[in-house]
Amino acid sequence: MSLYKVPLMDYYFRMKELRIALAQINPTVGDLRGNVEKCIAYMRDARKYGAEMVVFPELCITGYPPEDLLLKPQFVSDNLKALDKVREATTGIVAIVGFVDRNEDIYNAAAVISNKRVVDVYHKMYLPNYGPFDEYRYFQSGTRYPVYKMGDVHFGVNICEDIWYPEGPTTIQALSGAELILNINASPYTVGKADVRESKIVTRADDSAAIVVYLNTVGGQDELLFDGGSIIADEKGDIIARGKLFEEELIVCDLDIEGVFMHRLQHPLRRQQVLNLEETNIEIIDVPVPKTTAKAKQKPKLPKPGFCPMEEEEEIYSALTLGVRDYVNKNGFKGTLVGMSGGIDSSLVATIAVDALGKGNVTGLFMPSPYTSRESREDSRALCKNLGIKLLEIPIEKIFKSYLDTLKGVFKGKKPDTTEENLQARIRGNLLMALSNKFGWLVLTTGNKSEMSVGYATLYGDMAGGFAMLKDVAKTTVYALAEWRNAKAEKFLIPERVIWKEPTAELAPDQLDTDSLPPYEVLDPVLQAYIEEEMSFDEILSMGCAPKCAKDVIRMIDRSEYKRRQSPPGIKITPRAFGKDRRFPITSKYKSY
Amino acid sequence: MSLYKVPLMDYYFRMKELRIALAQINPTVGDLRGNVEKCIAYMRDARKYGAEMVVFPELCITGYPPEDLLLKPQFVSDNLKALDKVREATTGIVAIVGFVDRNEDIYNAAAVISNKRVVDVYHKMYLPNYGPFDEYRYFQSGTRYPVYKMGDVHFGVNICEDIWYPEGPTTIQALSGAELILNINASPYTVGKADVRESKIVTRADDSAAIVVYLNTVGGQDELLFDGGSIIADEKGDIIARGKLFEEELIVCDLDIEGVFMHRLQHPLRRQQVLNLEETNIEIIDVPVPKTTAKAKQKPKLPKPGFCPMEEEEEIYSALTLGVRDYVNKNGFKGTLVGMSGGIDSSLVATIAVDALGKGNVTGLFMPSPYTSRESREDSRALCKNLGIKLLEIPIEKIFKSYLDTLKGVFKGKKPDTTEENLQARIRGNLLMALSNKFGWLVLTTGNKSEMSVGYATLYGDMAGGFAMLKDVAKTTVYALAEWRNAKAEKFLIPERVIWKEPTAELAPDQLDTDSLPPYEVLDPVLQAYIEEEMSFDEILSMGCAPKCAKDVIRMIDRSEYKRRQSPPGIKITPRAFGKDRRFPITSKYKSY
Repeated sequence: MSLYKVPLMDYYFRMKELRIALAQINPTVGDLRGNVEKCIAYMRDARKYGAEMVVFPELCITGYPPEDLLLKPQFVSDNLKALDKVREATTGIVAIVGFVDRNEDIYNAAAVISNKRVVDVYHKMYLPNYGPFDEYRYFQSGTRYPVYKMGDVHFGVNICEDIWYPEGPTTIQALSGAELILNINASPYTVGKADVRESKIVTRADDSAAIVVYLNTVGGQDELLFDGGSIIADEKGDIIARGKLFEEELIVCDLDIEGVFMHRLQHPLRRQQVLNLEETNIEIIDVPVPKTTAKAKQKPKLPKPGFCPMEEEEEIYSALTLGVRDYVNKNGFKGTLVGMSGGIDSSLVATIAVDALGKGNVTGLFMPSPYTSRESREDSRALCKNLGIKLLEIPIEKIFKSYLDTLKGVFKGKKPDTTEENLQARIRGNLLMALSNKFGWLVLTTGNKSEMSVGYATLYGDMAGGFAMLKDVAKTTVYALAEWRNAKAEKFLIPERVIWKEPTAELAPDQLDTDSLPPYEVLDPVLQAYIEEEMSFDEILSMGCAPKCAKDVIRMIDRSEYKRRQSPPGIKITPRAFGKDRRFPITSKYKSY
Repeated sequence: MSLYKVPLMDYYFRMKELRIALAQINPTVGDLRGNVEKCIAYMRDARKYGAEMVVFPELCITGYPPEDLLLKPQFVSDNLKALDKVREATTGIVAIVGFVDRNEDIYNAAAVISNKRVVDVYHKMYLPNYGPFDEYRYFQSGTRYPVYKMGDVHFGVNICEDIWYPEGPTTIQALSGAELILNINASPYTVGKADVRESKIVTRADDSAAIVVYLNTVGGQDELLFDGGSIIADEKGDIIARGKLFEEELIVCDLDIEGVFMHRLQHPLRRQQVLNLEETNIEIIDVPVPKTTAKAKQKPKLPKPGFCPMEEEEEIYSALTLGVRDYVNKNGFKGTLVGMSGGIDSSLVATIAVDALGKGNVTGLFMPSPYTSRESREDSRALCKNLGIKLLEIPIEKIFKSYLDTLKGVFKGKKPDTTEENLQARIRGNLLMALSNKFGWLVLTTGNKSEMSVGYATLYGDMAGGFAMLKDVAKTTVYALAEWRNAKAEKFLIPERVIWKEPTAELAPDQLDTDSLPPYEVLDPVLQAYIEEEMSFDEILSMGCAPKCAKDVIRMIDRSEYKRRQSPPGIKITPRAFGKDRRFPITSKYKSY
């Protein structure tokens, strides 16, 4: 009779393997019922593929970020009830589910559930409170970094920001025996961020000699856009699975847990670190292996991973497409309306809207004035024809005249100035809003980040609308996106002339943007330096910018905060977008020049 | 020959006294030069009164809150240069000055300066990160709570939030020997907050058996309003000095430091606490007594304190007056423009604006339509006559007709609805903005918190403007303020009929607010419960609100976030104002009913 309940060879030499499913889903903030249904549907699919474990993103029950909904006790309690519905559906599977835990205070948490039993709850330890994040406003920090033991497999769970700290839970959990780290995220997109994340995850995996699962959420939420792109790095730091960018996906993958032990044995640095590991009182918590899962012998074939690499323009274009689609759909709009000027901004906005929502859900509105050129009308028509969308035309001349007549007395003796230009823009704003009110369409504003930065836009005029798709996209990038889209279409979907003609607001005779602004090739780098990189005046000069130009641009940026404060939300794609990401006082006498 | 350098009797029995000056000033965010000049001017006055020490508010060098200016290295460095200018002016006096310290990271700090030498710098330990505050976004927490020894006087310095914690620096500094605690603030106003602060300060003073100086800043900064009202509580918890509310003031006071020792000797609880004080490694830092001060034998007579108690309406009215005055002046506007409707909101806004800025800086604009009643015109005229301001009149009928004509084709077959109502409001918004553009006036919007809450307002229409004075003032409070102002004037400054007639938007025939909303006496308590107190649906029902009413109101609040996001800033007067104080997602499917 053996001392061992299983045969010795089996005990020591069975190959440890885990089939894991990552639910890279798109929850909606506050839609507790919808989010629960989505989790349950993905769990069903995971089970279908024979996964023993399914992982969901950070705060997938509530959507991210729930902001001040978190300060409503009723919301927290409803979220707990929603989690319980997910728990009830975990028959025969282990699930890691992001939710808001309540225990004297509230926590950004992950429930570890096995076969309908909540085995443990992990609390996020590192709370981001920069950029668009306000997590100290809401959450208490966690203090425990347990290791979970599921049969032969040891794993650690942590949340988003936790993995960015080299001394954080990942390292401690891995040194304490976890072969697998599950890091769940709601990590917003910025251009090129995927590369930064990937090198971070790869480094963590290699440093810890552990398999690291990085699961991101996907979808748009007001100004934030989550880009998915989940990855799994093995214990050597090689990427073994990748999720799609900007799309929901269930990523199923077999993890060779045994390989981790093999690798660690050859890893002198890690063995040294374990020897030096201070007493951390790591809890080892048993996670029962669900019976039904254990029985599944013959595992189904895995789906092919859907990841495709993207060049920068495609990446940004896809981000904007998803952002506008989610804003429109999650807010229940029936369609969208774009004020078409024949310029590059409105052309790109309409094109992205059609790609995002289908041509039946986008209407163009052309509102000519006597300053509108023949080319603008032709180009607007050509574009809408190419896109297959309806173009309405409402001239503003009569209304403009009635304003001028009505104001004649009050303006007596005053020369025309920007007042009259703004009036035209505001008449257009009113017409767009009138159609929005009458037909239930969301107005997509067309201003770009360069204009928003320097205030080259009319409040309640071209700024009037519900969503500012290009709010964080510099003018030079607008051109690049238009050219990329045309190249993809293999034709001039956006008419050629729109791309090469000089930008103009057409609010006065022969007006050009360059009458008021430096050329965009000069302006955009200064904007990036001042806004995104917080460079000083002297540093901007050392880039080669003329002092007068730098001074004018900075002054325009500083003075336009009041306009930006009243602008609609748009999609963050840079490290410093306007909105919650850049919190400037309106009242400020600071001059950096 | 005596062992003591001073005669024994003198050494032990000299009366310790300190003449202190509190500079309750109104700095401007980013106006480093202006703030420095103000500090130096107040320091000069303090010296004139023979004060040995002068205290300035939290971040008085930069103004509060500087928000993301703090993330600009150049701003931090300019603030240090500004502090140095103040340092140079501290001849013969000890000054406590709020600034941003830089030492690897940045700190919300107070410099302890004696006669041109920075003796030490205190770093704020408790950083508020709730409501309108984001201090974790900016600052590192301090870790030291030194006690300063200036001649015979021991004092501790701490900053704002620090004193709200019973276990915070105040307690430790006092137990470690500080007889005097200097707590410098930029503490925003909310209705009745002065009482809360006072009882807290009195309790701290009594608990610590120390004199507590609570110095607040004063003035408006975007949505925040600092109300001054500095106080000094003696070691028994009695208030011995009070600063004015809503005004700058130099408060000079003689502090009987000797009394603290006398009191402590009779204070068994404190003696017990000192015995139990754990080893805290308190630093005792010498602050040289400036020579010139030490020489001043004959001290000048002190000015009388300017504090006057206020009833609630006067307090709110004063807050709004200061808020709008500072917004207009600090942003450099030449005048203001108010759209007059003959209703209570615009009447109150115009009245406050005149009280804040003088009648030469306020213009009224009456924009009648066919739905405008005779009474509205009469009441607008009567009010402007009473206030002595100019009332312009621009009818909107022609413009409205030109819109309807122009839209006829597109709207064919559609019935009139809120679209046409919004159009009228937006025409008025455009006219106000046209005058604003032409004459450089700031448009003061007239919407109140009740309307903002339920979205009973037109985006780009009556919401168009630069400053929303009543944004945080409920409709029922608007009435109370109007009545208070009339009572103060001892006449119907705001015409009687404006107060008793039914509120109406006059955008459709015979329209009343109650067509769309519950009466304000019913609505306002529900708004307060849901917004300011975060009550659940059931709790609101238990207040006696009908389920349909509660549901409708909550739905309207939740759905109007997109409007509020594009509204101009207004003055926070409640515990939960719209703006940075209440951060709600626009995209949210959460339903609490």
